[in-house]
Amino acid sequence: MNYFCIEKDFGIDALRLKEKPVPRPGHGQVLVRVRAAALNYRDLLMAGGSYSRNLPLPLIPLSDAAGEVVEVGEGVACWQPGDRVAGTFFQDWDGGGITGEVPDSALGGAIDGVLAEYVVFRERGLVSLPAHLSFEEGATLPCAALTAWHALESGNLASGQSVLTLGTGGVSHFALLFARAAGARVIATTGSEAKAERLRQLGAGEVINYKTEPNWEERVWELTNRRGVDLVVEVGGAGTLGKSLKAVRPGGHISLIGVLSGATGEVNPLPAVMKSVRIQGIYVGSREQFAAMNRAIELHRIRPVIDRVFPFAEAKAAYHHLQSGAHFGKVVIAV
Amino acid sequence: MNYFCIEKDFGIDALRLKEKPVPRPGHGQVLVRVRAAALNYRDLLMAGGSYSRNLPLPLIPLSDAAGEVVEVGEGVACWQPGDRVAGTFFQDWDGGGITGEVPDSALGGAIDGVLAEYVVFRERGLVSLPAHLSFEEGATLPCAALTAWHALESGNLASGQSVLTLGTGGVSHFALLFARAAGARVIATTGSEAKAERLRQLGAGEVINYKTEPNWEERVWELTNRRGVDLVVEVGGAGTLGKSLKAVRPGGHISLIGVLSGATGEVNPLPAVMKSVRIQGIYVGSREQFAAMNRAIELHRIRPVIDRVFPFAEAKAAYHHLQSGAHFGKVVIAV
Amino acid sequence: MNYFCIEKDFGIDALRLKEKPVPRPGHGQVLVRVRAAALNYRDLLMAGGSYSRNLPLPLIPLSDAAGEVVEVGEGVACWQPGDRVAGTFFQDWDGGGITGEVPDSALGGAIDGVLAEYVVFRERGLVSLPAHLSFEEGATLPCAALTAWHALESGNLASGQSVLTLGTGGVSHFALLFARAAGARVIATTGSEAKAERLRQLGAGEVINYKTEPNWEERVWELTNRRGVDLVVEVGGAGTLGKSLKAVRPGGHISLIGVLSGATGEVNPLPAVMKSVRIQGIYVGSREQFAAMNRAIELHRIRPVIDRVFPFAEAKAAYHHLQSGAHFGKVVIAV
Amino acid sequence: MNYFCIEKDFGIDALRLKEKPVPRPGHGQVLVRVRAAALNYRDLLMAGGSYSRNLPLPLIPLSDAAGEVVEVGEGVACWQPGDRVAGTFFQDWDGGGITGEVPDSALGGAIDGVLAEYVVFRERGLVSLPAHLSFEEGATLPCAALTAWHALESGNLASGQSVLTLGTGGVSHFALLFARAAGARVIATTGSEAKAERLRQLGAGEVINYKTEPNWEERVWELTNRRGVDLVVEVGGAGTLGKSLKAVRPGGHISLIGVLSGATGEVNPLPAVMKSVRIQGIYVGSREQFAAMNRAIELHRIRPVIDRVFPFAEAKAAYHHLQSGAHFGKVVIAV
Repeated sequence: MNYFCIEKDFGIDALRLKEKPVPRPGHGQVLVRVRAAALNYRDLLMAGGSYSRNLPLPLIPLSDAAGEVVEVGEGVACWQPGDRVAGTFFQDWDGGGITGEVPDSALGGAIDGVLAEYVVFRERGLVSLPAHLSFEEGATLPCAALTAWHALESGNLASGQSVLTLGTGGVSHFALLFARAAGARVIATTGSEAKAERLRQLGAGEVINYKTEPNWEERVWELTNRRGVDLVVEVGGAGTLGKSLKAVRPGGHISLIGVLSGATGEVNPLPAVMKSVRIQGIYVGSREQFAAMNRAIELHRIRPVIDRVFPFAEAKAAYHHLQSGAHFGKVVIAV
Repeated sequence: MNYFCIEKDFGIDALRLKEKPVPRPGHGQVLVRVRAAALNYRDLLMAGGSYSRNLPLPLIPLSDAAGEVVEVGEGVACWQPGDRVAGTFFQDWDGGGITGEVPDSALGGAIDGVLAEYVVFRERGLVSLPAHLSFEEGATLPCAALTAWHALESGNLASGQSVLTLGTGGVSHFALLFARAAGARVIATTGSEAKAERLRQLGAGEVINYKTEPNWEERVWELTNRRGVDLVVEVGGAGTLGKSLKAVRPGGHISLIGVLSGATGEVNPLPAVMKSVRIQGIYVGSREQFAAMNRAIELHRIRPVIDRVFPFAEAKAAYHHLQSGAHFGKVVIAV
Repeated sequence: MNYFCIEKDFGIDALRLKEKPVPRPGHGQVLVRVRAAALNYRDLLMAGGSYSRNLPLPLIPLSDAAGEVVEVGEGVACWQPGDRVAGTFFQDWDGGGITGEVPDSALGGAIDGVLAEYVVFRERGLVSLPAHLSFEEGATLPCAALTAWHALESGNLASGQSVLTLGTGGVSHFALLFARAAGARVIATTGSEAKAERLRQLGAGEVINYKTEPNWEERVWELTNRRGVDLVVEVGGAGTLGKSLKAVRPGGHISLIGVLSGATGEVNPLPAVMKSVRIQGIYVGSREQFAAMNRAIELHRIRPVIDRVFPFAEAKAAYHHLQSGAHFGKVVIAV
Repeated sequence: MNYFCIEKDFGIDALRLKEKPVPRPGHGQVLVRVRAAALNYRDLLMAGGSYSRNLPLPLIPLSDAAGEVVEVGEGVACWQPGDRVAGTFFQDWDGGGITGEVPDSALGGAIDGVLAEYVVFRERGLVSLPAHLSFEEGATLPCAALTAWHALESGNLASGQSVLTLGTGGVSHFALLFARAAGARVIATTGSEAKAERLRQLGAGEVINYKTEPNWEERVWELTNRRGVDLVVEVGGAGTLGKSLKAVRPGGHISLIGVLSGATGEVNPLPAVMKSVRIQGIYVGSREQFAAMNRAIELHRIRPVIDRVFPFAEAKAAYHHLQSGAHFGKVVIAV
């Protein structure tokens, strides 16, 4: 089978296409023929070598894949050949709170990922694909979608509440879709009128152009009758957190997802105290949450926004496309 | 001003229409001109004398009213004349968990209610009416709607989950509307094809006729792919709780609201253990929850279903109409 | 190796002592030399054939064991030979809410249990034993102790709150110990003065003899200044649930654990509504909860109460002793 | 009656002792004869004029007082003359989540405070004093103690968990006492060996001297077997938050209370994401929480640590003493 790997040099163009025998599933394992994989900002950091100093090289990159079960190992009860599945970002996080061991099972980082024709997953490292989704669509779910879902769930988002999303990246557009499906009002920011229009089509109640309106946090405040939003899906890191703290209501919730944007910098935490705000770091999510998200996706027949699908052989071009920032929605690789 | 009261005899026809001076608001109080009141099953029990042995007679009945602020007492900051408001069922439950003292402030029971032209409320015993609702519509919210809202909130209802509602009473139809606005799937039961059709129009995904399908709990089980519903809004008491325990999923939630239906009887609690089910008694809700509900009502422009509006002078006819069970939705009295 | 099994006939004396080769751990599995096992009421039901109609016979009984790791299978990272461990009641419940699949992994019921010299566990089907506990003490934790821990956790027990425990069975005495370690006040019931004295020694603030005081729920009410207890660990099923509903405070919590006592019968659910009580079915707990419990056991150096230890060869005598009801604390079998 | 006020100039020595008639309680109000008041760091900021630009002058300072009820207004059911009470920091926060209006009822800031011989409170702006506490001890509870209680409750502190406290200020020493009463392990920091010894006497399991051990966060990490603490009571603001983020476990909780220390500065939020940490701003607490805290204080017979009691006439000396930083525990003014 063919697969890509980060062998010993970093950089998109250093990715190597290689070949090895199709692996066999052991006890409690499942062999999946990958049909599509999707890229996240994290994958650019991985390829560039800036994500972690301890990457176990050589490493098969990417965390997000969908495909079909080909063979199950001994003791596997919940899957059979032909099942349409997606892998879980963390192979070892069934449910409950995160623990220190969970990150050790992150695909395409701590362990080999999915940019390959076949991958062996842990039995509980898979979920069923929503029936109405293609493999390309399903491949977008494991990281960005689940992060967005978790971000809303951790703030106990309820019908009638308001959510602030920032920009049009993968997590933000999923947060918009899921917040709408939960009966919430969404206020979104973007720097482009074209993207603003698409955000409105996806269900944003109001869109603020942060270029023409640099003090957008004040506008959020006004749009909520000076009450503030209930929940912020904060993907901008220190660069926007200060403004988010102004836009959120007293007692409100900020889900912090800076790792995906690679943002750094510092912020004054004092306003969080004065407004009794909760800031919750979000790092993808558990299999239990993935399953709950998929039920919402099925019920609402939500379709992820795909910017472009690249063939397997042009995987590097997919990376470059994501890096260009020109996309709206997910960049996918058909395998 | 005119008002009705339960003077010393019980029975709908013993309700007395009387007159007294318009009261004045004291420190921290607000005088409201009542424009509409709504009936609940509880009010039939009150009028009939079967709700409690300790009713403080004479008693102005009814808990649910909407109207406009006429005058505010000293120290009142949040209201001014002209504000459109609804009273809170419990005058003394701002937020947080219920305490033993809360029921002592129940309108139309522990203290005088709202079937009157003017009522003095506690400053925090009022909420703003959603702007798109008439007074008649707003009057339906304090008891039935808030009970339904609380029933869903206590089960942490999330988008993509499934809810079972029983029948077409006030709480059940609000539960259906709110569950839909929260992105949940609703399975409803009823005993009439005509009502089934209306339930579908209001958003029920599936309706089961419990007359033609007496083992409706098995059908619920099948409709959820033998997973069970996530949440039951149980208004039938012991009469249906056994079936609800079969219809709910392992780890699921049953909001128990039997007091409103006057149901009695016994049930075997063992299945709740085997399935790790949570049964939560629901007794209306707090002002904090009322405000959250109103934000959802406003965002989704939800309109309560009103069966019929009676003029103030025909209040007794309204009681008789509710007692007949022929209604679908709320019975309202315009004041 | 030697092991006991329920072969095809039921009854304690039908348990068969048999022999087979020591099993080998597969991928993700761990071989443990069992050093002690403990009995629960559930095991009497299993042996008697009344627990379930679908027991997979022949079945190795018992869910609770402690021992040391002998060998680890491929891919096992968290254990090594020599580790002192206890098995988890459910081999497949890492954390989060229970699902419908979890019971399929119950030791000594859905799958083979631990009354054997060697047992193969799933890698995540083990926890470390608290260092200060013997194997006999550690063997008491998987079912009764974890059930008690979960019962308190599900009610968010906090320092300064009050807990009602019923009788002196395994779950109740652990609930007493854990409630005290959480800074709560414990009111306990028992039918014997001798046991009352032992309950006081273990930390019960008040003990009520339900034989001399059949209306013990009224006494609980008085002891809490007519406020009611915050949490009931209800092991009596329908037989005591009615009284527990009277003893609990408005808004309080009842953890229902009837399955362990085999109780049946019915109860009127209406008081749960009037008092806004939550009744939560408890079915042991997850590995995540087990680990948290063990941290509390270590910090407080809690020692389970062991009534008597039987040698492996006299396992049937241990069953008979438990059945006699004469014990106070856990009945253990040294292997 | 006599009272102190910030009239129009700022600074401790600008506090004015004045006289006015004893006020009378209106509807729903309660007159209390103040017997003791306590100082918080916030009061130094108030007196110095640096807390807020919008202080309503003249202002009676201080938020914390205990005393006895002298007279109740119309409609007051829960209090009677002679009751021993403490005022709530926020006069209008009964329970539930904080809202934007709550801070408008903060004593000694938004509204007149308690450095007076008599104060009129809202009926629900009082709690009963624990019976074993003197007025001086009771006066220390409304701000510092409740903040500490809320800080632990917001992290769902459970028995067996670990808590990190910073220094020996009012909030930190209460957090230590409450964490111990909840069965948690406490690791404390301080800069003085003498204070370290007192922290150990109060129940700290380990104390780290941050002067001799500037990388104290690494020591916390080691003391928890490289797992990290479950909860940090963070009173140091940006100055220590970076270290607290290193000391807390993945998935852990940091209660942020910087407002009390006046800390400013910035911090990199990225580690909160990578470790899935929750940072919760804490701003005192509700009456419901105060009542729960008092039940814990009573059950465990907790006694606040009082550094020194000044007579009413020497109130300014009390301020200066607090400002000196030489205290361990609370500075109180007997009235």
